[in-house]
Amino acid sequence: MISVIILGTGNVGTHLITTFLVSKNIELVQVYSRKESSLKFIKDKVATTTKVNGLKEADVYIIAISDDDIPEFSSRIAGENKLIVHTSGSASIHALKNDGNKGVFYPLQTFSKKQSVDFSTIPICIEAENEKDLLLLERLANNISNNVFIIDSEQRKRLHIAAVFTNNFVNHLYKMSYDICKEYNIPFETLHPLIIETAQKVVTNHPKVIQTGPAHRNDTKTINAHLKLLSGEQKEIYQLLTESIKKTYGAKL
Amino acid sequence: MISVIILGTGNVGTHLITTFLVSKNIELVQVYSRKESSLKFIKDKVATTTKVNGLKEADVYIIAISDDDIPEFSSRIAGENKLIVHTSGSASIHALKNDGNKGVFYPLQTFSKKQSVDFSTIPICIEAENEKDLLLLERLANNISNNVFIIDSEQRKRLHIAAVFTNNFVNHLYKMSYDICKEYNIPFETLHPLIIETAQKVVTNHPKVIQTGPAHRNDTKTINAHLKLLSGEQKEIYQLLTESIKKTYGAKL
Repeated sequence: MISVIILGTGNVGTHLITTFLVSKNIELVQVYSRKESSLKFIKDKVATTTKVNGLKEADVYIIAISDDDIPEFSSRIAGENKLIVHTSGSASIHALKNDGNKGVFYPLQTFSKKQSVDFSTIPICIEAENEKDLLLLERLANNISNNVFIIDSEQRKRLHIAAVFTNNFVNHLYKMSYDICKEYNIPFETLHPLIIETAQKVVTNHPKVIQTGPAHRNDTKTINAHLKLLSGEQKEIYQLLTESIKKTYGAKL
Repeated sequence: MISVIILGTGNVGTHLITTFLVSKNIELVQVYSRKESSLKFIKDKVATTTKVNGLKEADVYIIAISDDDIPEFSSRIAGENKLIVHTSGSASIHALKNDGNKGVFYPLQTFSKKQSVDFSTIPICIEAENEKDLLLLERLANNISNNVFIIDSEQRKRLHIAAVFTNNFVNHLYKMSYDICKEYNIPFETLHPLIIETAQKVVTNHPKVIQTGPAHRNDTKTINAHLKLLSGEQKEIYQLLTESIKKTYGAKL
């Protein structure tokens, strides 16, 4: 049995609380939040506190708060034997300023409070300062997920950037595509299968192997026809990505 | 029963041939290709020809050749009563120069010859010059797909651009993400669930509602940290997409 305390009731905190509560080998000892009102939803099921000096003992303290608050907040948690981890994709392990041991427990997924989450498929990236803590975090992570990766702070910074490309930027391209469809009364549903297929393909193929399209085959005629129909940001993004694809696949510029 | 002749044995042609051969209400009458060798794979199952003047009679002639060849090639097919359609996403219906009727039968998906395709989920965009032909194409399309859309040439041009954004450009972002991971020995598998989740979310949500990330929340600190770690094209694309997201969601610049 691994005992855990969650500090923070934002998106990540809330989903971890819900998941740990139903996990057999994990004992959720306590939940902390600055605000009493944020603890309402969990008060019946587990001990809660709004005071850092009211924290109980546990094997792992998981801080799920905003990146900027990690140093100051972690420095307030007393105890040289405590293992404190944060859940951030971009903050270093050294953002933690507690006296005790430090680690990272970063679930790589976009969370929204409303949508329920199946943690078993979510990759959890862990990091610790020593082997013992790493094994403990690995056991904890394996209890809720089938995808556990040991990723250090330098790697995690890059992983976060890579995630920005595959999630934030990709979704923005979906949005541009949606706008183009809407402007010409084309049902966006027409593109749904292509969107799913594109994502599924890259899970089983190298992205270079499955690249297609006018930029990839250096089809200047189609590219120019498209550029004529675009303006503003859509045009700028079309141009930059087209040039980048051309460069990647060696087409003559 | 609808009788069909396929002209062209590229990716789209080949997949249509395979699909029509096993469709109950469709009779594949003949397959045309310029080259005898391209007809080898189908010779045992259906009549073939390498001569345009050797074409048999059919309800619909589907030209699946490259965009540039459509005008000249279609002009060589004699017969005022023939309905000839092309399968291109970007060519207008007016690219067809035959004497008879014209139409479009555009399956919106990325095809590769090797990968088998389930047409039932592929959107087929149809267009014709008159109601009778449109109904015929609709019947034909409904026989192989559950997603049939009536899309005119002006709409189709935009749809093709939208598809470039959601497929070609999205895959290029996957590739950049892949490169970042590779450079830092991060398994790309870490990102697979996020890629799939991002695609699945946009099928049931408006893309604006599900946008997240540093640009969306105008998190300048994280953005600057990311920019410091990037260079070249990765940096340029990061910057442009970040600015575009910021503008879209009204963050102060």
